[in-house]
Amino acid sequence: MKVALLTEPLKFNLVEEEKPEPGPDQVRIRVASAGICGTDIEAFLGNVPRGWHISYPFRMGHELAGTVDQVGAHVTTVRVGDRVVPDGRLTCGHCYQCRRRKFSACLNAGYISGGFMEYTVYPSRNLVRLPDGLSWDQGAWAEPVSCCIYGNSKLEVGIGDTAVVFGDGPIGIIHGQLLKKRGARTILVGVADHKLKIAEQTGIDETIHAQRRDPVAEVRRLTGGRGADIVVVAVGHEKVLEQALYLAGRGGQILYFAAALKEKLALPLDLVHYQELKLMGSYDSMICHYEDALQAMASGAVVVEPLISHRFALEDIQKAFELARKREGLKILIQNRHVL
Amino acid sequence: MKVALLTEPLKFNLVEEEKPEPGPDQVRIRVASAGICGTDIEAFLGNVPRGWHISYPFRMGHELAGTVDQVGAHVTTVRVGDRVVPDGRLTCGHCYQCRRRKFSACLNAGYISGGFMEYTVYPSRNLVRLPDGLSWDQGAWAEPVSCCIYGNSKLEVGIGDTAVVFGDGPIGIIHGQLLKKRGARTILVGVADHKLKIAEQTGIDETIHAQRRDPVAEVRRLTGGRGADIVVVAVGHEKVLEQALYLAGRGGQILYFAAALKEKLALPLDLVHYQELKLMGSYDSMICHYEDALQAMASGAVVVEPLISHRFALEDIQKAFELARKREGLKILIQNRHVL
Amino acid sequence: MKVALLTEPLKFNLVEEEKPEPGPDQVRIRVASAGICGTDIEAFLGNVPRGWHISYPFRMGHELAGTVDQVGAHVTTVRVGDRVVPDGRLTCGHCYQCRRRKFSACLNAGYISGGFMEYTVYPSRNLVRLPDGLSWDQGAWAEPVSCCIYGNSKLEVGIGDTAVVFGDGPIGIIHGQLLKKRGARTILVGVADHKLKIAEQTGIDETIHAQRRDPVAEVRRLTGGRGADIVVVAVGHEKVLEQALYLAGRGGQILYFAAALKEKLALPLDLVHYQELKLMGSYDSMICHYEDALQAMASGAVVVEPLISHRFALEDIQKAFELARKREGLKILIQNRHVL
Amino acid sequence: MKVALLTEPLKFNLVEEEKPEPGPDQVRIRVASAGICGTDIEAFLGNVPRGWHISYPFRMGHELAGTVDQVGAHVTTVRVGDRVVPDGRLTCGHCYQCRRRKFSACLNAGYISGGFMEYTVYPSRNLVRLPDGLSWDQGAWAEPVSCCIYGNSKLEVGIGDTAVVFGDGPIGIIHGQLLKKRGARTILVGVADHKLKIAEQTGIDETIHAQRRDPVAEVRRLTGGRGADIVVVAVGHEKVLEQALYLAGRGGQILYFAAALKEKLALPLDLVHYQELKLMGSYDSMICHYEDALQAMASGAVVVEPLISHRFALEDIQKAFELARKREGLKILIQNRHVL
Repeated sequence: MKVALLTEPLKFNLVEEEKPEPGPDQVRIRVASAGICGTDIEAFLGNVPRGWHISYPFRMGHELAGTVDQVGAHVTTVRVGDRVVPDGRLTCGHCYQCRRRKFSACLNAGYISGGFMEYTVYPSRNLVRLPDGLSWDQGAWAEPVSCCIYGNSKLEVGIGDTAVVFGDGPIGIIHGQLLKKRGARTILVGVADHKLKIAEQTGIDETIHAQRRDPVAEVRRLTGGRGADIVVVAVGHEKVLEQALYLAGRGGQILYFAAALKEKLALPLDLVHYQELKLMGSYDSMICHYEDALQAMASGAVVVEPLISHRFALEDIQKAFELARKREGLKILIQNRHVL
Repeated sequence: MKVALLTEPLKFNLVEEEKPEPGPDQVRIRVASAGICGTDIEAFLGNVPRGWHISYPFRMGHELAGTVDQVGAHVTTVRVGDRVVPDGRLTCGHCYQCRRRKFSACLNAGYISGGFMEYTVYPSRNLVRLPDGLSWDQGAWAEPVSCCIYGNSKLEVGIGDTAVVFGDGPIGIIHGQLLKKRGARTILVGVADHKLKIAEQTGIDETIHAQRRDPVAEVRRLTGGRGADIVVVAVGHEKVLEQALYLAGRGGQILYFAAALKEKLALPLDLVHYQELKLMGSYDSMICHYEDALQAMASGAVVVEPLISHRFALEDIQKAFELARKREGLKILIQNRHVL
Repeated sequence: MKVALLTEPLKFNLVEEEKPEPGPDQVRIRVASAGICGTDIEAFLGNVPRGWHISYPFRMGHELAGTVDQVGAHVTTVRVGDRVVPDGRLTCGHCYQCRRRKFSACLNAGYISGGFMEYTVYPSRNLVRLPDGLSWDQGAWAEPVSCCIYGNSKLEVGIGDTAVVFGDGPIGIIHGQLLKKRGARTILVGVADHKLKIAEQTGIDETIHAQRRDPVAEVRRLTGGRGADIVVVAVGHEKVLEQALYLAGRGGQILYFAAALKEKLALPLDLVHYQELKLMGSYDSMICHYEDALQAMASGAVVVEPLISHRFALEDIQKAFELARKREGLKILIQNRHVL
Repeated sequence: MKVALLTEPLKFNLVEEEKPEPGPDQVRIRVASAGICGTDIEAFLGNVPRGWHISYPFRMGHELAGTVDQVGAHVTTVRVGDRVVPDGRLTCGHCYQCRRRKFSACLNAGYISGGFMEYTVYPSRNLVRLPDGLSWDQGAWAEPVSCCIYGNSKLEVGIGDTAVVFGDGPIGIIHGQLLKKRGARTILVGVADHKLKIAEQTGIDETIHAQRRDPVAEVRRLTGGRGADIVVVAVGHEKVLEQALYLAGRGGQILYFAAALKEKLALPLDLVHYQELKLMGSYDSMICHYEDALQAMASGAVVVEPLISHRFALEDIQKAFELARKREGLKILIQNRHVL
């Protein structure tokens, strides 16, 4: 089978390997489609995302869907031929955090990234079934959508609240859709006209081009001076988080769903006190959110098709990442030949 | 009657005035005891606390208790002789924020500070009854305790959570008592041995002298490396908020109950994302929290007596503020002769 | 001006009266449109709804919108010609419940019902502005929609939850719309085909005719045996509340938004324990929910036009109530000639 | 080793068996102390508690603590000699409910009851370490205290709230302690003077003897007519749940922590609507609550010693149950000789 290996920063190598054999509690999956995540691009560029351990040759791809190809001796919950989405996170189930059901904080966590290859192996308990009506590509979206759903669920949304999302990438637009779906009037701030247009097409009420209009002034104006009830920051920039703090209204909630990758950010934090803000972070998700994500796509609550800008064959992964690092497209998918 | 006027920064003048007459919906109160707040000290020093409008001569004192001395024609809810605590905040009741019941954010808010004088006038609807068993001094604590109760109520506290409070002043110690009372193991961080000792005497489990032991390392050690579930920041310093971010555990809640009075603070904010922290602010309180505060003192849930370090007669207010600005004592009260 | 008086059960009398004069803090409103509520029908039939005090001749109509016609001397917030919706509830603002911001539980509450007459008087602080794009009829819906929004906000709704609403009347369908809008897959149970059809037209996912299919079995089937995450009971029948308890899944939330008007209901309450259910009630609303209601209609989140089955002139109020008591229509509006 | 077998209703038989051998992921525990639960008494009487499957001879005892005696080949988390408390619940970890982290609702749940015998076997992941300062008897309390902590955590408790607990058995008194600890003024209603006295000794503010004073009238009186903010029902009687509904104040929360074991209860449920009550159930707990329970006992937040009324040797289990069924004592413990 073919496996894409990152042999050094900026360079993928496509090699042939034996198909892996599943252990007794594992299944082998024939990968159909896998998304490139912003963090994958960081790793491609030679950066080391927080929590990642990179040694070359390095295997990536954590947003994937495929068909069960072989099952281990003890596996009873899925069968060969089932369409599935694997959750890559390995949790111990018995540490302090797991017992408190904060699986995403498991103290003994591991991770399997099996997306950018033809066959891959996961524990059967890490699988979620891909509903019949959903495509392979939608399956590949389960992971990013699950993270958005988990993070978004930390926000209290009232009918009639005004929500602002910073970020016109896939993550920002998914958050925008969720907030709209949950009843808020939703404004998305970005810098690329074609992405803002797509955001509007997926139902987001309004968009602001941050280089043409001042988001703070604009949101104040749109809310009669009161500021936003909810802000999601899906761009990791000091400046953006600063704007989020300035445009949140009294008692506003801010979800910090990105990382600026700087040790310290200089921000008007006294506003948290005076304006009674609530600034929250979210990281990762849990397997139940994969199920929620698939259901959200199945019901149409979350729409991802328009956010797929490019599809490449696994053989062209180098080209795909070259394109991805320019950050002009939205979601780029790597697919196996049998799907394309 | 005697009135203490701040005629310029650092200088009080005691003048004689006519007793004020209450309007039809107002009452006149004979002040018994009034506390000096940290913000009062700022104003005394010539600084202008956020939201204050200072013109000389300036009247202060917003933590007070006294006896109803005269009632306006329409007043039916209190009578001459009743012991009361006034809430100084004037709210319009019909703006966007009031309708949403966020009175502390009223868009047309006003404020009455009638503490540092012999008689003062408040609307009858701003009064809370001082329960029989409580002293005048406890009454003077209703305002600061009410703010702590409101802010603290934003924190979710589980039996067995570990809470850390930064600040060994009156506000920090009250928060510490509340967290202990709500079921958390409570650690208070401060810099004055005698204040830390008082904190322990009021039931707080442990204290850390921040100049002798590193609070971050210490709290990590005390929690088996996991960090605190809850942190209250009752000191307005960049450095302290930084420590709060470092010692909060995964999913930790931080209440920012102070202001550093700097436009921007440089802080490790990416931790909010990676550690899934919740950073919340609180400002002010509402009249229901005055009632809660008095009840908390009546039941013994909150103990304030040991936190009163000095009492001065109104005539000695200048001395009281000279002492207060040294920040060596805890709560300093200004009392009228009939009480002393 | 014309006023409809209920002079005895089942009998309205239309009389001529002087237009009322607003007091200094009041405004006079020229009523445009007013809805008939289920509770109005009870009163028409001679029953006394809980909390009502009926003495003949009796004035009704608490769901209304109109134009400001005259303003009292102290009124500054509205002007003659403004389109407004009045909230009939009078709250004291200083009782235990008001101080705790539970206005709907005010211990000194009063109520103004000025809907079924040509002109009526309300305190200016009880007015909400009717946004430009909304019709008089939508304005008349502000009150029932506000109650639904307040009650519905007590439910936690996750993307992908399954919600069931019992009741195909206006209240049930509004709750169904809100749940759908908040992200739940929504099923409505009723007994009238034409109402179920309208429910579906307003976006509710599925409907169940309770006399043709067993709601409990059906919801169990639709949820893979797990039962509903959320149930709203908008029908006051013992049998319906029983079904709600049976079809709620583990940890399910049930909103009891109706009254069976019986001293005791015999229900399988042990399920609350074993299934860890949360059974909540809601009653009334607050003025902020009127604002939310109007905004929800303005944004299209809540659609009321298809739920208006009949419109009558004030002169035909007797006919309107005769029809209403048959409970065949949905919302019936009483309008003044200048609107019709 | 000795094992107590219930061979038929009302009859225990003590038999000799081989010590069980732990599987690779299991440990063998030498039982020290085990509590008799109210549900055990039901089973002893020949009733079948909901969710139990009884076939004779039947093994019981789910509240226990002991020493690790032997460990399976794969076990790394505990060692021979460790003092532990086992959680008897077996969860699959991958069903719909487990993925949603509702372990107590696992669709494939099993249960191990190894308390009333000398040696027993549990999976290593089901073990919680018994802290050094705690006794075997406190360890035996971990299970009932964990259930109370889980259930109690569903209640929002404010400083100054008034809470009422129905039930002077161990469960009621633990709930009372938790509510007191969480900041509420706490009133416990019971029918046995000596139990009420013990409740007061453990810190509960007030008690009401239900046969001498009417709890509804009394609580109304103690709360100035407003009723209780919080009610915990730890007695499974229709009458008691009825009283709970009557004495809850507007917006009150009621935790139904018992079962009346009747198909239907006739109750004034319309109060849920009119009074905006929240009626919640709780069942079981999760392993994190075992840890919380042990920590609560270690910190003194929960005090169980005074609630232990009798201790019997395993050999005298028949006598212990004969006594227990009279319901005169509080907690009765079964201990092995090496402990007694």
